[in-house]
Order: sequence, then C-alpha cells, then structure tokens
Amino acid sequence: MSKQANNIFYAQSGGVTAVINASACGVIETARNHSELGKVFAGRNGIIGALREELIDTSVESAATIADLRHTPAGAFGSCRYKLKSVEQNRAEYERLIDVFKAHDIGYFFYNGGGDSQDTANKVAQFSQQMNFPITCIGIPKTVDNDLPITDTCPGFGSVAKYVAVSIREAGLDVASMCESSTKVFVMEVMGRHAGWIAGAAGLAAENEGDAPHIIVFPEIAFDQAAFLAKVKESVGKYGYCAIVVSEGAHYADGTFLADAGSKDAFGHVQLGGVAPTLATMIKAELGYKYHWAVSDYLQRAARHIASGTDVAQAYAMGQAAVELALAGKNAVMPIIVRESSNPYRWSVGEARLSDVANVEKKMPRDFITADGFGITAKAREYFAPLILGEDYPPYRNGLPQYARLQQVLVPKKLAPWTGK
Amino acid sequence: MSKQANNIFYAQSGGVTAVINASACGVIETARNHSELGKVFAGRNGIIGALREELIDTSVESAATIADLRHTPAGAFGSCRYKLKSVEQNRAEYERLIDVFKAHDIGYFFYNGGGDSQDTANKVAQFSQQMNFPITCIGIPKTVDNDLPITDTCPGFGSVAKYVAVSIREAGLDVASMCESSTKVFVMEVMGRHAGWIAGAAGLAAENEGDAPHIIVFPEIAFDQAAFLAKVKESVGKYGYCAIVVSEGAHYADGTFLADAGSKDAFGHVQLGGVAPTLATMIKAELGYKYHWAVSDYLQRAARHIASGTDVAQAYAMGQAAVELALAGKNAVMPIIVRESSNPYRWSVGEARLSDVANVEKKMPRDFITADGFGITAKAREYFAPLILGEDYPPYRNGLPQYARLQQVLVPKKLAPWTGK
Repeated sequence: MSKQANNIFYAQSGGVTAVINASACGVIETARNHSELGKVFAGRNGIIGALREELIDTSVESAATIADLRHTPAGAFGSCRYKLKSVEQNRAEYERLIDVFKAHDIGYFFYNGGGDSQDTANKVAQFSQQMNFPITCIGIPKTVDNDLPITDTCPGFGSVAKYVAVSIREAGLDVASMCESSTKVFVMEVMGRHAGWIAGAAGLAAENEGDAPHIIVFPEIAFDQAAFLAKVKESVGKYGYCAIVVSEGAHYADGTFLADAGSKDAFGHVQLGGVAPTLATMIKAELGYKYHWAVSDYLQRAARHIASGTDVAQAYAMGQAAVELALAGKNAVMPIIVRESSNPYRWSVGEARLSDVANVEKKMPRDFITADGFGITAKAREYFAPLILGEDYPPYRNGLPQYARLQQVLVPKKLAPWTGK
Repeated sequence: MSKQANNIFYAQSGGVTAVINASACGVIETARNHSELGKVFAGRNGIIGALREELIDTSVESAATIADLRHTPAGAFGSCRYKLKSVEQNRAEYERLIDVFKAHDIGYFFYNGGGDSQDTANKVAQFSQQMNFPITCIGIPKTVDNDLPITDTCPGFGSVAKYVAVSIREAGLDVASMCESSTKVFVMEVMGRHAGWIAGAAGLAAENEGDAPHIIVFPEIAFDQAAFLAKVKESVGKYGYCAIVVSEGAHYADGTFLADAGSKDAFGHVQLGGVAPTLATMIKAELGYKYHWAVSDYLQRAARHIASGTDVAQAYAMGQAAVELALAGKNAVMPIIVRESSNPYRWSVGEARLSDVANVEKKMPRDFITADGFGITAKAREYFAPLILGEDYPPYRNGLPQYARLQQVLVPKKLAPWTGK
C-alpha cells in the first residue's frame, strides 16, 4: 500500500443534535495538537461534501472559533440525509470518495452519525483496502434516538433527555396552576419514532408522588385507548390534572401510528406528526377535559441552552477519542461510552468495531417500562438519571446565546465535478 | 370607617408565567419586613380561593421556601380563569369577598394579573368603600401578552420573549444544517391571539443577514397567502431554508384564524391551535418543500430555566412596590415599569391608576412591523432588546431545576361555605 496521507476528513451525518459540534470540536482541537496530522477538512453538508469535493478548511478558523463549536448546536458544517448504497450497487460513489481523498491527501475519515453512518464508514474502510489507498475510518457516535448498540448512550441523547424532562416539569407546574378552572390535560409530543428513549427520559421529572408527567405513551407498547383514558381520568381525579408525554412513534396494536389516524388538514392531506393534538382531542371527545398540547420538534434536539453537561463532555470525548484511536493505528472502530457506575456516575471511553455497530438498533428494554405501560421503572431511572447531570450554558450576548460563526472556506477543487448527484 | 385590618390577601389570576411567583416573592418578603403588616394569605386558585375561603397561610413557609418562589415558574398558589361580574350583576360575590376579608382581618388586596384582574381590583376598591370596610387594592401587572397599557412592559413577557428568540435561533441552526438534503422549512407557532408582541420578540434572534427567523406572521397583518409563499420561496432561494415564526392569532382578511381553516382531527372535530401545521402543509402543497413544525404552547410561558433576568427583577420589583404603595397610603393603583432609557437600558418603578389600566388593551404599534408585514423594524428591536437581557438560572439538583414546594396550609375557615360556585 502507498504511504498514508495525513489530512482528516470529518463529516456530520443525519439529524443533528445540540452537541454534535462538541464532537467536531474534540476532533479538531485534538488533531491540532498532533503535528503528525495534517488539516481537518469538514464535508460541506456531510458526505455529500466529499462527493462534490466541497471541503471546508477548518485550519483557517481561529482557536477561539473552534472552541465555540463546543457550545454550538446543530451541524456547523451542514449534515445530510444521504446513505451510500453498497459497493456492489454503486461502486462509482466509493471510487469518487477515494478520488477526492487522494486528491486532498486525506488519510483519515471520521464519520459522526448514527447506525447508517457507521455502516458507511465500515464500507469505506473495506473499499479503501481494495483500492490500495489506506483510509483510517473511525465512527463517532451521534444520535438523539439513543439507539446505537454497545455504547452506553449516544451523544445528543442526554441533552434531549434534559430538555424534555425540564420542559414537562415546567409545563406540569403551569397546568397544575390552572386546572381548577381551566386546562386539565397537557400533552407533550417528543421525538422517537421507533424507540421510547426520549419519552422515557421525560419521566425523570417525576420525583415525587403526583409530579408530572403522569402518563408516558411509548412506541414499545401498543396503544390501548381504554386503558389510556382510564389513566387520564384517574390522574385528573387524584391530582386535579394530567400531564402526558407521548412519543411520536406511538401506535395502535395493528401498527397504525396515532399521528396518522385520519387527521386531514385544510388541503385534504393526511397530517403528519401531531400525535399530541390527536391524543388531546381524543381526551376532549371522550372525557370532556380542556386541553393544551405542545410539539417541540427540532427545538428539543437543538436546545443547546439547556444541554446536559454530561452529554457535552461525552460528545467532546468521542471526537477526541476518534483522533486518538486513529493515531493508535485502529481502523473501522468507533469510540463508545462505557458506564463504570451509575451512582456515583462514572464513565470511561471504550471502543467497538464498526461491523458490530452498523445497522443494529438498540431497543429500550421492556423492564424500563412499568407493567401498565405508562411509566418508567426504577431500573430506567437509574439508567437515565446520570445522562442529564450538569448544566453547560453557552455564553450570552444581548440576552441571546452566542453560537459559532465559521468562515466556511472551501478548499480549492482539483477534480472534475461529480455527476452522480 | 373602621380601622383597617392588616393582613394581606394576594391572588394570582389568569394564565400563569415564568415569573409570577417572583412577584409573589416580592410581596411576601417585603411584607415580612414591615411589622405594621400582618400575614400574607394567598388565594388558593386565585380569587376563587377568596370566595371559597380557601386561604393559603404563607406565614408558615420558611424564608428559604419563599425565596425559592423567585425562581419557580407557574402559579405556586394556583390561578384561575374567573372574572367577577359587575357589582350590579353579582353583588353577592363582592359581599362575599368583603365577608371573607373581614373574617380574616384582611385590609390589603393585591391582585396579580392582567387587564381583567385590574378591573376587578378596582371594583373591589370601590365596593369596600361603600361597605365601610376599607380594603387597599393594589394591582400587580402580569401577562405574557404584554398588552397592559401605561406600563412599559408586563412581567412574564420578557421571559417568553427570550424563550422564543432563543428557540428559533437554535432551531434555525438545525434547519440550516439539514436543508441541503432534507427539511427546508420550519414553522414555530407562538402565543398571541390578539397581538404579535411575542412573535415580534422572536425577531431579535435575527442579528445578521440570513439569520432565522426569516418570516414572522403577525395577527396585526391580514394573512396574504401569495405574498407569504413568495417570501418563503425567496428565503429558500437565498439562504437554502426558511424559518418562520407565526402567532397563534394569525388570520385572513375576513378574520378567519388560519388555525381554524378547516383542519379536522380523527374524530371529525375542528382542530384548534395548530396554525404551525396549517402553514407547513400549505407550503408543502404549494411549493413542495419538506417541513417541520413546532408548537411550544405552555412550554414557552413556563420556561423558567431560560427566564430573562430583567423580567425576573421587574416581576419581583412589582411585588415589592405593591406593598410599598399600600404602606404609602395609595389605593386602586398598580405599580408599573417606566423605561428611562433603552440603550443602556434603565428602568424605574412608577404607578398607574387601576381605572386607567382596566380593560384597555395595548396593541403593538404598526411601525414595529416592516412594510411587507413579515418582520420587525429597528424601532421594535430597540423596544424588545432590553427585555430579554440577563440570565437568571434556577438551582439544579439531579440535572433538573429545583422549584419551590410549598406546604399549602389553609387558614381555618370561619364562615359558611360559599354557595355561589
């Protein structure tokens, strides 16, 4: 094989989080400390940036700007929803990646994303061997869905968890204030199409009997309308109100999403999202309670202002570890978070093979959910609690958080335009 | 007239806020410093608590618990949506209030609410004179709607303003990350049925060309679908994405709310709320852009975790001033916030007569809105900017904000049950 090039290509992939830039910060700051490494190029809009040869040169950014990434939400270089096919299906894409990497002396590929991205990174590692142009491929875990295997948690999740727990605590107090003469039911919809990790974490807000949330609706449990309505009625009877957290993926036993259960908008289209209003109007129709509902959507995963300090530290550590693993000669691996102890919380950095991570979805264990299907168990609480520990506030100016503004200077192109997309 | 009793009755009214308890804290702490004043009784669920003789004895709460109120959102004593009719229409209610006040040696009535509440406080002041049982009635301003006259702003508004500006900044960065291959339009619905104060404040997030939000839809401006869609298209063309803030009160020229424009849920009911999904699906239908939307609802007004330091200080000052005005012999007045200077921001406490405040709604001036109707002017920015200044974080334990937990001890009843409600 030829001598390995020493520039780094870093790309963000899939839905962004409040802390993915903290991982980028970890990569860039660590790489800058190692003279044997060259420049860090970031893909403009993720892997698409590599295919288009749109490489953002992070070396022109000041140390202060790079440091700002640690407290900046969303994807500073742009992300994308774009999954490379298999080598057999689209060999040209892989060849293009290698061509771009060669042209820019890139010997390291750090892919910051979820299960699909780890799969891609693994394929690139294999393909680069075939092409006799060695690329060290390291995955960096990221997903608010918390569904990557092996790692104890995924950077991005702890901050969403904190946001939803704080939000339902606050909104619960609001409803409690109003319930005597006004709103009695509040429904908050949270992300999680396939797994209830985020919904479950909202349960941390309930520390004492009667605290919000009173009901959690999980995608793991088929929705039972009669049992649900009985529980709402019971909560209103006991506490005067009912605060509900519902996962967007909540569905009936036949698999139909609650959110797709027939709502049509003014244009006659089936309304997507909106399981919260669906539940709220169901309660109104069946029990007559006045309701309010909220759908946080992107607000929850972008909420850097209330990020978990633990999550920020872990996201940074994953970026740092990616560089260190690469320098240690590892390939086709992903740093992971290893839980050493829950109470007191202690964690360390481990590693997993990309082939073991790729395309495996970690489900929430059934024993995290109470027998009635509407709450979390002590075991779940033990798991979730450390992940929201610590506050890590961004700096403010004029009353607003100040987030990194990068120059986004592109490296001059050397190749013909990519015609694949 | 008989000698004035020296206990205080304090009640929270209408929709609660992130800082109404800071006003309660100001009342109670200030009253405790004046030996000529007796106990502070808080109405359980607002004025209903007075009618039912359900008086929460705040004197049993420790100084630490009362201090905790300053950083606790929502209505710690309960609020209500209950408007006293005129004396002519329901004299019995006023007589009942006076009976309860007499029975518990209450000589001061502090009513913490919006325009309706100030009207009620004014009526009670007049009626108590007629009944020869002098009650000093002081209003304490509160409303996220920012629609009280005379006062420069209303406690509660600055914190919602900060929440929506921070939220759209963060979500805007998220959409910017994803727009190349995924979501291009994000719509965030905010409160404001009659006035666009909250929607306008979200405009503070846009400090540089291209920043979110790119469009604000105000209730003050009749919705023009063609102009709106053209603006969305322009924004996506120029910046790659479009972040929109829409007031729940957005409506067509004929007065029809966008949110009521025909959406039906699974049960066949007209869907209330939900102007955000209405706009999002309109954009999808007409322009084809992939969208996401959020409705914060109560989260925005309960978000003590991101409260404005200015707002907290002003809310406390209003409670404190209410006591001081009462001790100075004032009656039927409300403390107000007087803006001395915008830059640097300086404010002082003034006063207004309840008769001048009651039932007057302060509209957002037309010159706060740009000519095209979709943005805020420099004048608006000058007004809004100081109101979100400063962070005032609550204390955290286990990763969650710690809010006051009161004992809620009721004063023993002395009267027959109220039969009015």
